[in-house]
Amino acid sequence: MSIKIGIVGATGYTGVELLRLLAHHPEAEIISVTSRNEAEIKLSEYFPSLRGQYDDLVFQHPEQACLKDCDVVFFATPNGIAMQEAPPLLAQGVKVIDLSADYRIKDVSLWQQWYPFTHSSPEWVAEAVYGLCELNRRTIANAQLVANPGCYPTCVSLPLIPLLQKQCLIDNQPVIADCKSGVSGAGRKASSSNLYAECSDNFKAYGISGHRHLPEIRQTLNHLHPQMGNNLVFVPHLTPLIRGMHATIYVQLKNGYNPAELIDEYYCDSQVVDVMPVGSTPETRSVRGANLCRISVQPAPENNTWIILSVIDNLVKGAAGQAVQNMNIMYGLDESCGLTFVPLLP
Amino acid sequence: MSIKIGIVGATGYTGVELLRLLAHHPEAEIISVTSRNEAEIKLSEYFPSLRGQYDDLVFQHPEQACLKDCDVVFFATPNGIAMQEAPPLLAQGVKVIDLSADYRIKDVSLWQQWYPFTHSSPEWVAEAVYGLCELNRRTIANAQLVANPGCYPTCVSLPLIPLLQKQCLIDNQPVIADCKSGVSGAGRKASSSNLYAECSDNFKAYGISGHRHLPEIRQTLNHLHPQMGNNLVFVPHLTPLIRGMHATIYVQLKNGYNPAELIDEYYCDSQVVDVMPVGSTPETRSVRGANLCRISVQPAPENNTWIILSVIDNLVKGAAGQAVQNMNIMYGLDESCGLTFVPLLP
Amino acid sequence: MSIKIGIVGATGYTGVELLRLLAHHPEAEIISVTSRNEAEIKLSEYFPSLRGQYDDLVFQHPEQACLKDCDVVFFATPNGIAMQEAPPLLAQGVKVIDLSADYRIKDVSLWQQWYPFTHSSPEWVAEAVYGLCELNRRTIANAQLVANPGCYPTCVSLPLIPLLQKQCLIDNQPVIADCKSGVSGAGRKASSSNLYAECSDNFKAYGISGHRHLPEIRQTLNHLHPQMGNNLVFVPHLTPLIRGMHATIYVQLKNGYNPAELIDEYYCDSQVVDVMPVGSTPETRSVRGANLCRISVQPAPENNTWIILSVIDNLVKGAAGQAVQNMNIMYGLDESCGLTFVPLLP
Amino acid sequence: MSIKIGIVGATGYTGVELLRLLAHHPEAEIISVTSRNEAEIKLSEYFPSLRGQYDDLVFQHPEQACLKDCDVVFFATPNGIAMQEAPPLLAQGVKVIDLSADYRIKDVSLWQQWYPFTHSSPEWVAEAVYGLCELNRRTIANAQLVANPGCYPTCVSLPLIPLLQKQCLIDNQPVIADCKSGVSGAGRKASSSNLYAECSDNFKAYGISGHRHLPEIRQTLNHLHPQMGNNLVFVPHLTPLIRGMHATIYVQLKNGYNPAELIDEYYCDSQVVDVMPVGSTPETRSVRGANLCRISVQPAPENNTWIILSVIDNLVKGAAGQAVQNMNIMYGLDESCGLTFVPLLP
Repeated sequence: MSIKIGIVGATGYTGVELLRLLAHHPEAEIISVTSRNEAEIKLSEYFPSLRGQYDDLVFQHPEQACLKDCDVVFFATPNGIAMQEAPPLLAQGVKVIDLSADYRIKDVSLWQQWYPFTHSSPEWVAEAVYGLCELNRRTIANAQLVANPGCYPTCVSLPLIPLLQKQCLIDNQPVIADCKSGVSGAGRKASSSNLYAECSDNFKAYGISGHRHLPEIRQTLNHLHPQMGNNLVFVPHLTPLIRGMHATIYVQLKNGYNPAELIDEYYCDSQVVDVMPVGSTPETRSVRGANLCRISVQPAPENNTWIILSVIDNLVKGAAGQAVQNMNIMYGLDESCGLTFVPLLP
Repeated sequence: MSIKIGIVGATGYTGVELLRLLAHHPEAEIISVTSRNEAEIKLSEYFPSLRGQYDDLVFQHPEQACLKDCDVVFFATPNGIAMQEAPPLLAQGVKVIDLSADYRIKDVSLWQQWYPFTHSSPEWVAEAVYGLCELNRRTIANAQLVANPGCYPTCVSLPLIPLLQKQCLIDNQPVIADCKSGVSGAGRKASSSNLYAECSDNFKAYGISGHRHLPEIRQTLNHLHPQMGNNLVFVPHLTPLIRGMHATIYVQLKNGYNPAELIDEYYCDSQVVDVMPVGSTPETRSVRGANLCRISVQPAPENNTWIILSVIDNLVKGAAGQAVQNMNIMYGLDESCGLTFVPLLP
Repeated sequence: MSIKIGIVGATGYTGVELLRLLAHHPEAEIISVTSRNEAEIKLSEYFPSLRGQYDDLVFQHPEQACLKDCDVVFFATPNGIAMQEAPPLLAQGVKVIDLSADYRIKDVSLWQQWYPFTHSSPEWVAEAVYGLCELNRRTIANAQLVANPGCYPTCVSLPLIPLLQKQCLIDNQPVIADCKSGVSGAGRKASSSNLYAECSDNFKAYGISGHRHLPEIRQTLNHLHPQMGNNLVFVPHLTPLIRGMHATIYVQLKNGYNPAELIDEYYCDSQVVDVMPVGSTPETRSVRGANLCRISVQPAPENNTWIILSVIDNLVKGAAGQAVQNMNIMYGLDESCGLTFVPLLP
Repeated sequence: MSIKIGIVGATGYTGVELLRLLAHHPEAEIISVTSRNEAEIKLSEYFPSLRGQYDDLVFQHPEQACLKDCDVVFFATPNGIAMQEAPPLLAQGVKVIDLSADYRIKDVSLWQQWYPFTHSSPEWVAEAVYGLCELNRRTIANAQLVANPGCYPTCVSLPLIPLLQKQCLIDNQPVIADCKSGVSGAGRKASSSNLYAECSDNFKAYGISGHRHLPEIRQTLNHLHPQMGNNLVFVPHLTPLIRGMHATIYVQLKNGYNPAELIDEYYCDSQVVDVMPVGSTPETRSVRGANLCRISVQPAPENNTWIILSVIDNLVKGAAGQAVQNMNIMYGLDESCGLTFVPLLP
């Protein structure tokens, strides 16, 4: 098998990460990468880290690219692009994996409250499968359009899925997700607030009054345990990391439930989600560059509150790696095919 | 007035920070700095950043130093030193400000559970005043021995004092303090786990099963609102910052209380604690190098949980700066005398 | 004395640094700060680090500001602004210290080769005094317009002045300045290439084919030792530092000259330039936040090449600090008046 | 083919990097990892980043390990260990690749001047092949003992080899290697000077009076162009990078030689050394995690001095990667077998 692949918007961080991950994927062949601004520039000139990998690839203007000849097209674009450019490809039978937020929220009017667009292809929102692999593996396998999850939703939802499925969280108590993200999560666009001199040696919360990933996480939580999403308190923080995301989650469980056992059981066969021993403290570098989520549960303190720690690389399991994992599922490959990168430590 | 000052253990981070802060203090005169390992080395040779400031000072061996000629001696030593070396000075009438943990916990047996020592001067524990300036200003003024608080206890307690005093936290609900600290908090001793190549580009929780600052914070909370300390869930995280500490605190308040108003009112006259507008997100660099704590409250989400953010520089308000503030109080000076450093940004 | 001060373009890094340095300057009173984009915003709202310092100051639109009522106006603007806006103020007798490059190069046609402008006030270029304090102290004292030097030119020129004055460098041999700068040197404007995720954990040379500071350094070198500037090989590198600049300079000296002695002698009375013992290795943090340049000379290796190390904080001695030092000189104050900040370490 | 591998001293950075690189090497089977301090600890417990890779491996005490059953043993130990422990293995026919400095310097008395030991196996120094693959490929193929080069020697020597072979450097002129290294180069041992709070946001030269890699580089230079090594001026600097090394090399060439052409020609077939277009500025992250050296030459300035830039990942091409490359050569495999990692960017 050789899957013909296109990448739209390949100059951003999720784009270059897809290129890194797919360079040695045994079944992948990249036939087109597009960029509106860098058209006709050689890929290896734009990204010297890729010299020697894709020496014949040249960025194509999206309008000149033959994306319809691809088997699957990844959209690594800002929000608002895939909703316009994916439907013509889908109509021709091309599979699409969208790394942006365009197809993640099923309730289009809710989506429109959080994103500054009128959705241009709401009919495809209904068709899209939310690509959280560990939750929707079966439907992903048959999907034509996959909405690849956001980084915070992936990091927060993965440890909560087993608890929500058992409906073991106490009803009217907050589910607190205190999250810390590296700066690459903000993308590669020019910005003052993400400059090195602004973010280095600095730590702050942001987007407390409402981060766009809030409705996305709530949708997953509510889907598994009705009303539970509304208990979510989500505080993202910006941390001086290039890559890496850490969620510290505080939940209150009904008596008799042990979250460590539930999570362990749910992920016992997973190659991607690693449940560490109780009391461990997973660190972000332990997943750097790898398609992994590591989770640990802390021993219950006196007052019934459990602490769950979850780490991912926001560009891998939080974006490009999960996208490739989704592609693998869609093509009946082993989920980790081509994704067995060992984390870079130190 | 010229206060004659000694610093014991001046080669660590809190020591060199005291030296920075006191260099231009209008009433301070440093007459002795001691170090067991660096005795007879010139201060400005050991710390090139201090060249031009204290060009005549030489580290003295603690046994040769005439600390009893000082008006006040700061202990910037590892735990377990001050409990031995402070009492002889105290007996001669010298005032002592201890930046270590030796005199912070009133319950000596509890202290001994958390620190690997038998306390050698428990009689002085009873005399010591806990030097959280904004709580104990009056008793500090008359103290001979001040136990300077830890960094986490300062950052977490300051925003909670006004709420605890009003007893407005709901009784059996957790008080969650999700805290993030820069690496200088771990001190300057040789260590593998605090190497640059270990801590840079990495984020992790640590000490969840029991950090030594836990009983210290609990003591303050219980003092103000009995039993409330036991509801504390405290999770410290190590962050790639040189300096800086950020606490994200989640509390549940009884109906009708607005924490923003209570905190605002309590600190309305403070030069040290800055209450920012509701919805602000204080960043650690906004207090870098300065004796400040900045606090903000987030608008109440639906489920009765309030979010409070608090930042300090762990070496200043979290250690040396608060120690100098305590000295100012003990000598009847303006609290911020010599402490009006403007934060270094960027 | 109270010097009435205006700052044009106070939202950038050199602007906020001027505000930090002047907050407690005993003779300074800031009466106007301008910003085209942030007009009518409170200073302390824009820069939370300044809360408590200038609580009444509000950014003024440059066209509404009464800058002509100032005694001295600092231009902390991008290149190309001061050349237009300074002359009307100068015409009214206001003193101007320009932190941009507009008045640094005496040869206007050369300037125009390096900067993308036609100079709009060449008549003032002739009047301007190049504000390298340690070289031009006397003319600065009587200047109305000071061209504050660039960061690289300051860091490279200071250790070379004593050698050039003695004409002791060998004529046709390269003077190599291998320089490393922190990222704040690039300013606060939105940019992709200075993002945290681009600059952190990365090191690279840049601008080798021609950095704008090259003609500026050459001008100083040629002024002191004709033709020597043309021997300059200048390689700037971008380093993951917020602040800090380090020059490693390789020179070949005529026999019998000892650069350590010459530099020592030249700066023996300076409070700003600290000549460290031979063999020392000054580090950038040893000047962090302080108006200092630390220099050391390495023992001569066999082959007649000497190594000279020089460090500054690019925002202080490399920009705002030197600007205040120039103001002090212009007003007959002690050069270090208000500038005795102790470096922040760690 | 399955090569049975042992790693001595696998708890340090070069050890864990070998483990990362070999995890998916198609011909490698790790049968023993040793550690004096961590004996009987599971590898994946000690290095959580390796969870899922070597789940059966347990650190063995070096005295209990059956290293003589290995085909090849890597020494990732501090200096002074391999010289003692390698000879018994060599005597039994085991191949050894030593990542320490024990066998690098052919002149044992010179070695003893720089390292604080009396060499315990000088007879093997003569047998050892210096494992700079691009220079000694043929002799490495038949070697039993390979002395893997240091990181600075690799980064500096690679671009100079083609110039030295042509003897085109001017005789009595300095060869200046201004080098910048990430902190992981100092290893993982406990240390005050390599703490995060010491190295972050700081830049400094070190070891100027004599770094141990100086005689190693000189040996290579002198070997290719007698006496040229003595012209070397080598200044290492410590940079806030986890990984990465950048050499900025200044050489004076005889008229008529173009270093870009010579270097290009020498490496035209290399998969490991990438010669970038003239005028490029290779950045350290462009080789992060990869067994690559990227080199560029800058256009000649007026005064006959050429600037050559060279970057490696100090832990890969500067240590573990080159060691695996040497193993590949020793076993007749493709040099890059198992080493085709794409650099991690950002």
